[in-house]
Amino acid sequence: LVYFDFEEMRMKNRLGDLRERMATHNVDAYLVPRTDEFQGEYVAPYAERLAWLTGFTGSAGFAVATKDKAAFFTDGRYTLQAQLQVNGDNFDRLDGSDTNPAQWLSNQKNIKTIGFDPWLFTASQLDAYKEFTLIPTQNLIDALWTDQESRPQFFAVPHDVRYAGEDDASKRTRIGKTLDADYVLFTLSDSIAWLLNIRGCDVPHTPVCHCYVLMDKSGQCEIFIDPHKINADAERHMKDQGRIIAIDAMTDHLAQLPQGSSIQLDPRTCPVFFRDFFEKQNHPIVLKNDPCILPKAIKNNTELDGTRHAHIRDGAALVEFMHWLSEQPLKSETTELTCVDKLLEFRKRREIFKDLSFDTIAGFGSHGAIIHYRADESSDIPLMRDNLFLLDSGAQYLDGTTDVTRTLALGTPTAEQKDAYTRVLKGHVAIATVTFPHGTTGAQLDILARHALWQVGLDYAHGTGHGVGSYLAVHEGPQNISKGASPVPLVSGMILSNEPGFYKEGGYGIRIESLVIVKDRADLAPGFMGFETITLAPLDRALIEVSLLTQDDVKWINTYHRDVYTKLSPYVNDPARIWLEKACEPI
Amino acid sequence: LVYFDFEEMRMKNRLGDLRERMATHNVDAYLVPRTDEFQGEYVAPYAERLAWLTGFTGSAGFAVATKDKAAFFTDGRYTLQAQLQVNGDNFDRLDGSDTNPAQWLSNQKNIKTIGFDPWLFTASQLDAYKEFTLIPTQNLIDALWTDQESRPQFFAVPHDVRYAGEDDASKRTRIGKTLDADYVLFTLSDSIAWLLNIRGCDVPHTPVCHCYVLMDKSGQCEIFIDPHKINADAERHMKDQGRIIAIDAMTDHLAQLPQGSSIQLDPRTCPVFFRDFFEKQNHPIVLKNDPCILPKAIKNNTELDGTRHAHIRDGAALVEFMHWLSEQPLKSETTELTCVDKLLEFRKRREIFKDLSFDTIAGFGSHGAIIHYRADESSDIPLMRDNLFLLDSGAQYLDGTTDVTRTLALGTPTAEQKDAYTRVLKGHVAIATVTFPHGTTGAQLDILARHALWQVGLDYAHGTGHGVGSYLAVHEGPQNISKGASPVPLVSGMILSNEPGFYKEGGYGIRIESLVIVKDRADLAPGFMGFETITLAPLDRALIEVSLLTQDDVKWINTYHRDVYTKLSPYVNDPARIWLEKACEPI
Repeated sequence: LVYFDFEEMRMKNRLGDLRERMATHNVDAYLVPRTDEFQGEYVAPYAERLAWLTGFTGSAGFAVATKDKAAFFTDGRYTLQAQLQVNGDNFDRLDGSDTNPAQWLSNQKNIKTIGFDPWLFTASQLDAYKEFTLIPTQNLIDALWTDQESRPQFFAVPHDVRYAGEDDASKRTRIGKTLDADYVLFTLSDSIAWLLNIRGCDVPHTPVCHCYVLMDKSGQCEIFIDPHKINADAERHMKDQGRIIAIDAMTDHLAQLPQGSSIQLDPRTCPVFFRDFFEKQNHPIVLKNDPCILPKAIKNNTELDGTRHAHIRDGAALVEFMHWLSEQPLKSETTELTCVDKLLEFRKRREIFKDLSFDTIAGFGSHGAIIHYRADESSDIPLMRDNLFLLDSGAQYLDGTTDVTRTLALGTPTAEQKDAYTRVLKGHVAIATVTFPHGTTGAQLDILARHALWQVGLDYAHGTGHGVGSYLAVHEGPQNISKGASPVPLVSGMILSNEPGFYKEGGYGIRIESLVIVKDRADLAPGFMGFETITLAPLDRALIEVSLLTQDDVKWINTYHRDVYTKLSPYVNDPARIWLEKACEPI
Repeated sequence: LVYFDFEEMRMKNRLGDLRERMATHNVDAYLVPRTDEFQGEYVAPYAERLAWLTGFTGSAGFAVATKDKAAFFTDGRYTLQAQLQVNGDNFDRLDGSDTNPAQWLSNQKNIKTIGFDPWLFTASQLDAYKEFTLIPTQNLIDALWTDQESRPQFFAVPHDVRYAGEDDASKRTRIGKTLDADYVLFTLSDSIAWLLNIRGCDVPHTPVCHCYVLMDKSGQCEIFIDPHKINADAERHMKDQGRIIAIDAMTDHLAQLPQGSSIQLDPRTCPVFFRDFFEKQNHPIVLKNDPCILPKAIKNNTELDGTRHAHIRDGAALVEFMHWLSEQPLKSETTELTCVDKLLEFRKRREIFKDLSFDTIAGFGSHGAIIHYRADESSDIPLMRDNLFLLDSGAQYLDGTTDVTRTLALGTPTAEQKDAYTRVLKGHVAIATVTFPHGTTGAQLDILARHALWQVGLDYAHGTGHGVGSYLAVHEGPQNISKGASPVPLVSGMILSNEPGFYKEGGYGIRIESLVIVKDRADLAPGFMGFETITLAPLDRALIEVSLLTQDDVKWINTYHRDVYTKLSPYVNDPARIWLEKACEPI
């Protein structure tokens, strides 16, 4: 607690410093997003500006400061974390789904001018602030942050076609043909990683390399990148793709583009800096979705086989961890953090493991109800008997990205916990088994995951599923499964998570997550599709209330467990195999 | 068949005549919608312009003519009917969900100018034609239609507050308070009927009275109506509402509104004539949804009790019909049309019966697969053994509107028919029993009705549910249950249909439809809602394949049948009661 008070004191000074800068720039308010210049989910340490200002370390947040007030916004996954990390004396802590920053600003008095960093905002993001005068500024946090780290200079790493399944020349050619302008500017790191078959390690957990790419209709590229990131391998890989240009020379170079040539930009993802820049240069601008997003989401067979293999290795690591945990005496030194470390240790032993795909969420008891809980020194608690342990983790392998959640009963679960777990499981099974016609979106499927919970008045405050990359971002679009309308129909080859949950604040958290591949089911009817569950890890049989299940539910669970045992048993150590056999017995 | 050929010949001449008129008006294409000047689902005989041109008599269609081509558009409900009624030599017959008229026109050569009647189109409907030059014309069909009937002159009928549950002064006051302009113009007949507590019989099956209403913020109205429609009762009722003004004097009167006063219009429902008129007069225009639509959809307790009572009378009539049918020898003179007549006879005996709420759909065998089939002299067939009979009907009572579909097995159903019927029934039960949190839309629920069908590759080409009025339109918004996004959350007091189906072209049709009321389920959790099924009519037990049902399904069906018997048995004749008791036995 002392630690938190100390942090809060510092936060306050930072907010005061920011307000002084705002006055200098004549802005009534200043916007501080979580994102960096590449709009990815993860940011490098230098770009942790939101954490520097507010203390919040989650992956989704936003701060606004005015002369005398400030507000912090996050979503249902992080509400509890924000309560712990963000000082309520300095910041109104709000749920962004109730009030967004623009609405909050509308309700403040005398707000006319708003300052923002044009590298950190897209045109779409700024649409909400139309009633104000928006004033682009240098980044005011960077100006204050004396010990800010420098930008990462890790090498770009070619991604082998034996994992990518399609060489970059083929991708560049087919994407080039889709252009509605002379050039397209790519700014999303994972789009560029997919397009050029490159990877990197500029941010935690998503293996991307920071750069921007301008491509013409023939697929020839100009790659704007810090020259320190290019070694011999990278240079050899990129030489057929076009020109490598130092990122510091980017604007000079872009200013030399042929007069009148048109530029395609994605208003939802491209920093507004570029739109303003090209407008000043009188280039016609074509606004259109980043044309890599959908092709990247539809995996080829090499990528699908790769991720299936990655899931076998990842499942084997998780099973060895689960077996290890089953042998630990509870009420001991086995804490959330020791579990995080141990699980990483089991994963590191697996072939072509590169990184976790996100910070492991290991929440015991009431910590499990903090949807994106991340244990640290101050929050860490030992695992005890008679409550639930929620473990959400994933890894980056060269052949695929994983993301799996299992909820384990330590000691004896209550009837309430079993009831809730089984309803979550029924939702998980309903998604795993659904088949649907061409044109169906994830929004249409979402209720299947919630139905058994809704029948008793329960729900969960997050989406049911997100897209997942291939040795790329653990969260990718355009598809998802959620309450909100997702206008993109599901297509064979997409990978999604299937992760219903239930959270009792102050009590426990439940989530069951496996990844699924959208697969063709033309055997049923032309155009029909379904899901193939690729995550392999047992479901805790002690938490299943069989009386709530249909025969079809039971059949699916038993078939799944047989599949888990068959596929994982050759790859786990002997004691873990014996444990797994029991864990996978029919219910 | 001779009859159809003759019609087709006439159609061709009409299309030729229309093209001559188009040339006179210098338009490359002309739009012929199904709707009239009030945008309702039903139109009076004078407004059956689409039928006059194309032969199509269904409730959803659209025609476009160019100099040398023509196209007819409808939706999945009417595809088969269009094949029968619209001459394919003259018109491309298209599904509007695949290609809309604007897209079709874009693919034709040399189409620049498009003629249309500004009384028959709303601003939103014209948005799709932005790439063309739109030219308002007089109605070119009216100019050709020599024996066109005159406009209806039926009296406006006050709707008693003991049925409406709220007097019109209260409605006018509360709607007036919502205005964002000095005046609002109401053009939808059912909005006006609800607002002023008036009814009429200007169109079949929807008890509305054609007029337009201008209302100020205080709720004072100017009612533009044919003076022949006002008798002493109507005049007494309307005198406190404001002024009655002859509809012929409407534009003169509107031209006298105070300069600069603002007018609120609904771009989705108001004829574009009015927007153009007020723009010319330099009135500021506020575009906003018709403010009666949502309040009308949320029924008060008087309306809800009324409709519950109407459903008892309607169910009793339907049960007497079902019993009568069960006693008819098949292979006889019992045809689809005799059933339509007989069912009407049973309904007419019920108190405060006023009209059917739509043309009864009585489809035997393959006719059941024509989703909105309407038997006529040329299509009528006798009911035979060993196929299904789909009966979709409804009535207008002073206290409520009904809409019910039951599918009956005549003779012995096949295993395939039982399987499909039971899957449709499972969907119906899933909607009937679902509970859901505040903010849920019908689009989220839709899949529950389709799930059991999708699992075997089946589906149906229509929505799952539509709103229903209170002695008003059998189809009303804003809520629905459908695949498409319906952004309006469900609210306690709304009435919806629950009507999944399955159609085997050339084989048989299955649909099970009951009306439901959205009801509060705060007993489960704050903000939760569910449905109360109010339609009372037995489900054909011979069609239920019990092995496909869950225990919960069986429990719901048996409880429903007990409810049907308890509520209807006091109101049906003795032989029908004995039949009903057997029909409602537990499965």
